[in-house]
Amino acid sequence: MTVRLSLPDQRTEERFTGLPDVETVVWDFASPLPGGGPIDLAVRPYVLQGDLSLLDAERVRAVQSQTLGYDDAVGHVPAGITWCNAVGVHEGPAAEIAVGLLIAAMRGFDEFARAMPEGRWVRAWHPGLLGSRILLLGYGGIGTEVQARLSGFGVELVRVARTARRDEHGDIHGIDELPSLLSTVDAVVVAVPYGPETHHLVDDTFLSAMRPGALVVNVSRGKVADTDALARQAATGHIRIASDVWDPEPLPPDHPLWSTPGVFISPHVGGAVLTMHDRVEALVREQVARLQSGRPLVNVVDVSGPAAASP
Amino acid sequence: MTVRLSLPDQRTEERFTGLPDVETVVWDFASPLPGGGPIDLAVRPYVLQGDLSLLDAERVRAVQSQTLGYDDAVGHVPAGITWCNAVGVHEGPAAEIAVGLLIAAMRGFDEFARAMPEGRWVRAWHPGLLGSRILLLGYGGIGTEVQARLSGFGVELVRVARTARRDEHGDIHGIDELPSLLSTVDAVVVAVPYGPETHHLVDDTFLSAMRPGALVVNVSRGKVADTDALARQAATGHIRIASDVWDPEPLPPDHPLWSTPGVFISPHVGGAVLTMHDRVEALVREQVARLQSGRPLVNVVDVSGPAAASP
Repeated sequence: MTVRLSLPDQRTEERFTGLPDVETVVWDFASPLPGGGPIDLAVRPYVLQGDLSLLDAERVRAVQSQTLGYDDAVGHVPAGITWCNAVGVHEGPAAEIAVGLLIAAMRGFDEFARAMPEGRWVRAWHPGLLGSRILLLGYGGIGTEVQARLSGFGVELVRVARTARRDEHGDIHGIDELPSLLSTVDAVVVAVPYGPETHHLVDDTFLSAMRPGALVVNVSRGKVADTDALARQAATGHIRIASDVWDPEPLPPDHPLWSTPGVFISPHVGGAVLTMHDRVEALVREQVARLQSGRPLVNVVDVSGPAAASP
Repeated sequence: MTVRLSLPDQRTEERFTGLPDVETVVWDFASPLPGGGPIDLAVRPYVLQGDLSLLDAERVRAVQSQTLGYDDAVGHVPAGITWCNAVGVHEGPAAEIAVGLLIAAMRGFDEFARAMPEGRWVRAWHPGLLGSRILLLGYGGIGTEVQARLSGFGVELVRVARTARRDEHGDIHGIDELPSLLSTVDAVVVAVPYGPETHHLVDDTFLSAMRPGALVVNVSRGKVADTDALARQAATGHIRIASDVWDPEPLPPDHPLWSTPGVFISPHVGGAVLTMHDRVEALVREQVARLQSGRPLVNVVDVSGPAAASP
């Protein structure tokens, strides 16, 4: 069976030309759907994600997103179109940036970088990661990759997930235990999926429960945290923040967080590594092979629910 | 047996008051030796390391340094004084900063930090660590801790030590293989001890052999690299640098490296973490217990050689 595959730009299309029984076309999810027969799999752009209202179930059978999160698609995809997220593409790089942000904040890297244009050697003592106690909030794809990366650092990891359970590494605490655990840790790494249950999970109550000077690292979605609460609690010095995701994005140039001491702003680049395209290609090739042999697609997620409330 | 112990400052002395059969005195290695009987163990200051010519073998039996390196002591310690370095105190934090510098450079953290005062959201693609090939130069205390920390990151580690050998992780290459290996990696982490053999090991020849755009991370001593060669090769963009140690230190405010793109300057804080003092205390307590029971000190190193040539 010939599979009709749309790619969001010509450079991506070139990765798939010449495959047997694959017809490729460029569609960026922003211009009208291309003519010809139905698209069996439409690969969505990564950065400029386009307009989902252009999707038409008569002409597109399935969408392969290049992101892990799909909160922005829920309620916006016509019935009959299968939605696949990008499991396996971003978890490693997101966990990598989470650990990087932990180290950067625990060792003062942002101060070093900002002192460079003036040639200032800002030697000082910092807390360090070794011997610290880190709460990992969310134990899905990114959470397990964070755990793997932190395994050699001599930290005590406190894992919290939706439901309490045990595995070979010990206890995973339920989210109901969060309030009592927050006061026991030096840092929290937020790696939960975004949705109605996790909207503004990191709010004033959450942050107030943390130790003075403790660190928040968010590599999930900006809306998991209440930005105003982050700004308030960082302004008093109660918490420090080193986060890759913010709400809104980009954070406006005049937002107080940019100049609050103890805040390090990474501009949502958790997945933006050059090797990403190879992992997306491998995933799309797997999906094409499945379509060709009549097997079900992988990474199918349910986007049929009501659209998430806009905060 | 009562042990006479000198500590470099009062705050450190307070950690040892009240120990049975221990007499403490403050000596900073800068003022004259205190009166009274001989000092069984003199703990050297960490930051301002004092003047070793004040040491007198009639009045000091052993020195406990708070650093791992002892190149500055070789040839400057009177015969008869035992010198102990700080094995176990700094390897973890030095490896932690090495991995942090790797991630920071591979993900663009220094650019993010410098864009913050202007509120600039500098989203861009970066190489990332996942899938990269990293050469670890030096497989002693720091090198093994770097290996442990990198184990969860999905990188390919190429280990190079003085002599080729094999262990449970695979091949350790001999330093004679370095020239052919340098062109195969995305980054080099330098973790060798400093001495005549490693003086300016990272020179123009070394750097020229690296891939264009490859990264040098140094957590050893500044003099292991030829600063002029680093500056030349970074200025052309041939290499990138993210280093904690430099020659000289502090790097002068007008040094071109401060403003060279692709260079991240960390101000020699590999060991400067707040938990350091607890590890030093544990080591000194161990040494005191050994002196009290007549057992040999741990971490004794040979500082009798000729003084290292000043470059």
